[in-house]
Order: sequence, then C-alpha cells, then structure tokens
Amino acid sequence: VQLTNRQCRLAARPQGLPRASDWECVDDAVADVGDRQFLVGVEYLSIDPAMRGWMNPVRSYIAPVEIGEVMRAAAVGRVVQSRHPDFRVGDYVSGAFGVQQYTVSDGKGVTAVDPAIGSPAAHLGVLGLGGLTAYFGMLDVGKPQPGQTVVVSGAAGSVGSIAGQIARVQGCRTIGIAGGHAKCDWLVEELGFDSAIDYKSEDVRRRLRELAPDGVDVYFDNVGGDILDDVLLRLAPRARVVISGAISQYNATEPMRGPSNYLQLLVRRASMTGFVIFDYAKRYPEALSQLAEWLRTGAIRSREDLIEARIDDFPDVLLRLFRGENTGKLVMALPATEVSDGAGAS
Amino acid sequence: VQLTNRQCRLAARPQGLPRASDWECVDDAVADVGDRQFLVGVEYLSIDPAMRGWMNPVRSYIAPVEIGEVMRAAAVGRVVQSRHPDFRVGDYVSGAFGVQQYTVSDGKGVTAVDPAIGSPAAHLGVLGLGGLTAYFGMLDVGKPQPGQTVVVSGAAGSVGSIAGQIARVQGCRTIGIAGGHAKCDWLVEELGFDSAIDYKSEDVRRRLRELAPDGVDVYFDNVGGDILDDVLLRLAPRARVVISGAISQYNATEPMRGPSNYLQLLVRRASMTGFVIFDYAKRYPEALSQLAEWLRTGAIRSREDLIEARIDDFPDVLLRLFRGENTGKLVMALPATEVSDGAGAS
Repeated sequence: VQLTNRQCRLAARPQGLPRASDWECVDDAVADVGDRQFLVGVEYLSIDPAMRGWMNPVRSYIAPVEIGEVMRAAAVGRVVQSRHPDFRVGDYVSGAFGVQQYTVSDGKGVTAVDPAIGSPAAHLGVLGLGGLTAYFGMLDVGKPQPGQTVVVSGAAGSVGSIAGQIARVQGCRTIGIAGGHAKCDWLVEELGFDSAIDYKSEDVRRRLRELAPDGVDVYFDNVGGDILDDVLLRLAPRARVVISGAISQYNATEPMRGPSNYLQLLVRRASMTGFVIFDYAKRYPEALSQLAEWLRTGAIRSREDLIEARIDDFPDVLLRLFRGENTGKLVMALPATEVSDGAGAS
Repeated sequence: VQLTNRQCRLAARPQGLPRASDWECVDDAVADVGDRQFLVGVEYLSIDPAMRGWMNPVRSYIAPVEIGEVMRAAAVGRVVQSRHPDFRVGDYVSGAFGVQQYTVSDGKGVTAVDPAIGSPAAHLGVLGLGGLTAYFGMLDVGKPQPGQTVVVSGAAGSVGSIAGQIARVQGCRTIGIAGGHAKCDWLVEELGFDSAIDYKSEDVRRRLRELAPDGVDVYFDNVGGDILDDVLLRLAPRARVVISGAISQYNATEPMRGPSNYLQLLVRRASMTGFVIFDYAKRYPEALSQLAEWLRTGAIRSREDLIEARIDDFPDVLLRLFRGENTGKLVMALPATEVSDGAGAS
C-alpha cells in the first residue's frame, strides 16, 4: 500500500487567535527512506503555547514556520521502517516531527523514548521540553532557597505544574495561580502546592497579600499581563522573576502590554530574567534523570491531558490550549500507526 | 541676630509635573543647637529625579515626604555653629539636609566633604550618590566586560554621564542616549563616549542598529518609556539591563507604561535588574576612592550644572531637571552662609 501523509500546514499568518483559514490540511506522499534514515509514524503531538510565536513572521530564538510549511511540533512516534542502524522498527522516538502522520528522519535531533521511565505522552511533558523548562527555569534562573515563597502562574499547565512541584521539593512555600476551581484543587490536593489562587474568581492581588505576607522570593511567570503586574507588587527584596512565557499576550491583537509595575524591580532590588531551554542542552541528561527519579519516588507527579484526534483536528486542539482548557500537559494522540516489518512505504 | 530658616515644604501631592501650588515656602525659626549637635548652613542642593518619587504617597525604598514636611534633598553645607566634637565650624559637610537654609544635625548620616578631592558641588554628583549609583549600578549590576557594547540613557545626566565613563574605563564601547545636539557633542568630545544618539532628532531604534550591530551587552537605563523599549529590541544574548531610574515616567499622569518589549528578555536570555544604592553603603569608601582616583588621573570627568538661586526658586529649578535642561549634575547653589565663630543662632 502507498502510505499517504496527512499534514497540517500554515496557510496564513494569524491575527490574534488562529482561525481555520490560517491552516491547510493536505495529503502528501511519504518520502522514500534513504540510507541511514528511518520513517516515523507520529502518534503524540505536543501542543505548546510557543506554537503561537512560531506562526509570527519574526525570528526569535527559533525561525518562524513559513507559509506553506508543515506546522512545527514536538512529537513522539514509532519507527515504522528503518535503514538506520540506531533506530529499530517499533522503537518509540521523540523529535520535532511536525503536525503530520509521517516523517522521514536521519536521526538528528531525535531521541529514544524509554517506556520504562514514562509513557510516550509523558516524554512530551515532564520528561520533555516542558519538564526541562521547569527544571532549569526554576532551579538555575529562579534559585529558590528552602523556606522561601515561590509563586507560579499557569500553574496547572505543562511547565507550571512541574515548576511548582520542583520548588516544593526544594522546601519552598509554593503558591500556584491558575484558572478555575478544579485546577486549583488539583494543584493543592494532588500536586502538593501550599495554596492556589483562581484568577478567574479571586482578586489575585489581595490573595497574594494574604498568602505571601513577607513577599514573593521567586515568581515563575508563564502568563504575563495583569498577573505579572500583580505579582510585581508583592516581590520580596532580591526576588527573582523568571520569564518563562506570556501566554496571555500571544494572541493579543493590540500591541504587547509590558509590565507597568516593572519599577518594583528597582524598589525591591529584584531581577527579571529570561531563558531559552536549548541553552541547557548539555545538561538535559542530568535534568531528565532527576525528573525521572522524582517521578519514580512520587516526589512530583505529572499529568497529561490526552486528546484523541486526527491531524485535521489540530487547529481546534490548539485553541483548547489558549482557552486554558487543559489541566497538565496538553497532548494530541493520533490513531496509532501499524507497526510491523511488513508495514511502511512499499 | 536671630537667624530665620527659609524652607520649602511639600504642600500638596502633585498630579503630573509639580506645580507652584504643590509647594509652600515659609520662614521657620532655627532650632537650638544641643549638646553633640551642630548647625549647618546649607549651600548646595542636589536636584534629583528621585525627588519626584518622594512626593508620592507611596513607600518605595524610602518613606514619602509628608505634606507639610520640608522637602527632602541631599545637600552640602558648612558648619556654622557646633557643640559636636567631630564637626568644626567652617567644615563642609554632606547629608540629607533638605530644601532649607539651615538644619541642626547630630552628625548621623552626615559625612565630611574634602575640598581637596572635589568641589562641594562635585560631592553631590560624582563623589555623591550619583557617582555611587553609577559605580555600583554599572560594575556590580551591569558587569560590563572589555570589548562589550554598553548603552546608557539619560547619558548627559548626573548618573548617566559617570556610568558611561566607567564603562569606557572598563574597555567597553559606550553609546550614550541624550536629548539635544549639545549634550551629545559633550558626551563624545568631552567624556569620550564612542557615540551618542540624540533621541530628540534621531530614530533611536535605527541608530542603535547601526551603532550596535552585534547587540547591546549592558543597558544602563535612567529613563524608561520608549527608549527602554527601543534598546530591548537590540539586546545581545545574555545582556544585562540595569534599572537605575525611569525619569520619562515620573511625572506621567496616565498609568505607568511598562516595557512592551520585555519578552526580548526571554528571546535573548537577558536580565533586567533593579538596585538601591543604600544597599552598598559598606562599600561606599571603596567606590569613592576609586572615583576620586579616576577624577584625579582624568580617566573620568564630572560636570556640575550650577544654578544660583534661593530657596523659593527650588520649585522652578526642579522643573529644569524634568525638562532635561541640565547637562551633568544639576545643583542649586544657595547664597553662601556667613561663617565665623561669632555667627549662628545667638
């Protein structure tokens, strides 16, 4: 059988929230597998806030996705055909495979997924870039000390949920900010956050005053906007604000809003620091082994919010993320590819 | 003779630029000089951007000036009467004497002024809090390395002019941003900045692209607003943004504007850090001796913009600062007090 490769391509640069017309889903032929190459059947797509940035025509830490290109996505798949000595048919692998059913790879940027450590989907969350972002952002940039107060926004998301638990493991008082009672309950009851603020129904500024009377030593920010401004007003002396993301601003059609209260950095002798996870690539093994150990011992927990869907559903699943509908890591699960030595492009 | 003490007191909390009605100038009696006290005749008033913040009813790093209180000001004066063993009549002294002709002091927070090192007015600039702010802000917070590119805004002001020269002494390429051709010429021709951008007549963003093609490693910000946003777009990887002040925002009647481009901190793995000079008090002697040495050898130059005026003129002189009319340190020189053993409150 000739395999067809369903793909979701970027058709237009979105203004604000991506619309259906910004995408084009098409069938493509599966490329031939050359020497030292292998064919991946994509099974799990990582749905990330950063995707929105990649759709803009601006080079940031990574080049934009071009119009007509397959949408970039971190993914886990299985090797369905191989002419590469290091990748065997049936292996789970992780890489930037894109929003498509198949891709041919030479192994560059592809890592093996060990199902003994965590599920394939977990390798896109706590054992993937999300977990790494939480690990280095919290520990290396935030530098939380035992007994300090740590606030995490987007706390029920992929990165935030891990970042807050890492702070707890360091002996910090952890306060999560998330949208909705269910998420807040999950943070406190399942993940061991000391408290949680529901920004949709509570006055964040007032609650921070109650929960962090001595100020916030580390603020791990995934959202930007009003919440960033609220936390800036509560910084403790020499506080560290870690800029991990700003999901509240990614779909803004007005000009980006900066933090009006940034002069609190001066008053509080505080810092605000950005980071890009790829800079820590050499230390990924250290971080992944620590994260796996914490998972194994139950010190931290992960949750993947799995949405079973097809390639053509990707535009809708992405919007779930920006509506804040996920709890934990949002992963789109594609129908499993058949794996047998007889399968593949023949 | 009974001395009268002309004072300028805060009469109302200003909205936007302070107006005449926000001040009240009155005559007060000079207090008696008690044991271990001395009377200072104030001669030079430091006119500082921070004064605007002290007028707001908000505690920041220091309590606000209360309504009816003498306006806070750093100053240099002479001891005109003394019952304190460490302060002799005729000595120049520096302290937070306030906008008034006389003050009685017990010596707390008062330092001797050595005329051999610099003029009394210089002790309010390069040898005072301005120089200290430039020194610790640039060296400890900015951490410029030889060969790096350093941008300073408010570069013709008290702090900026010294901060840029300190960066030059460290072997950095220094770019000053200031308002007007005359200031820019002064920066390049007299102070040895490598280049200067006149934000009033030039496109700051375009000029930064030309002058800092490889990005800005250290940005020492005294102004905030549009210029901060412009520089954020040119940061080099791992750049340090030093928040020293935000004079463009101090008189704003609309809500403070935050830096819209703050997510460049993430893209560039950069940091933005505030500091308060009083935290470095233990190291003032080190800094002052280094600054004095640089002045002596000509490595850096200082300029005081001396305005001869009376206490009642203070409100107008302060506005000169916010109109950017000063080049170098703005100092208000009061008529000299008579100093003789017979003078004083008798």
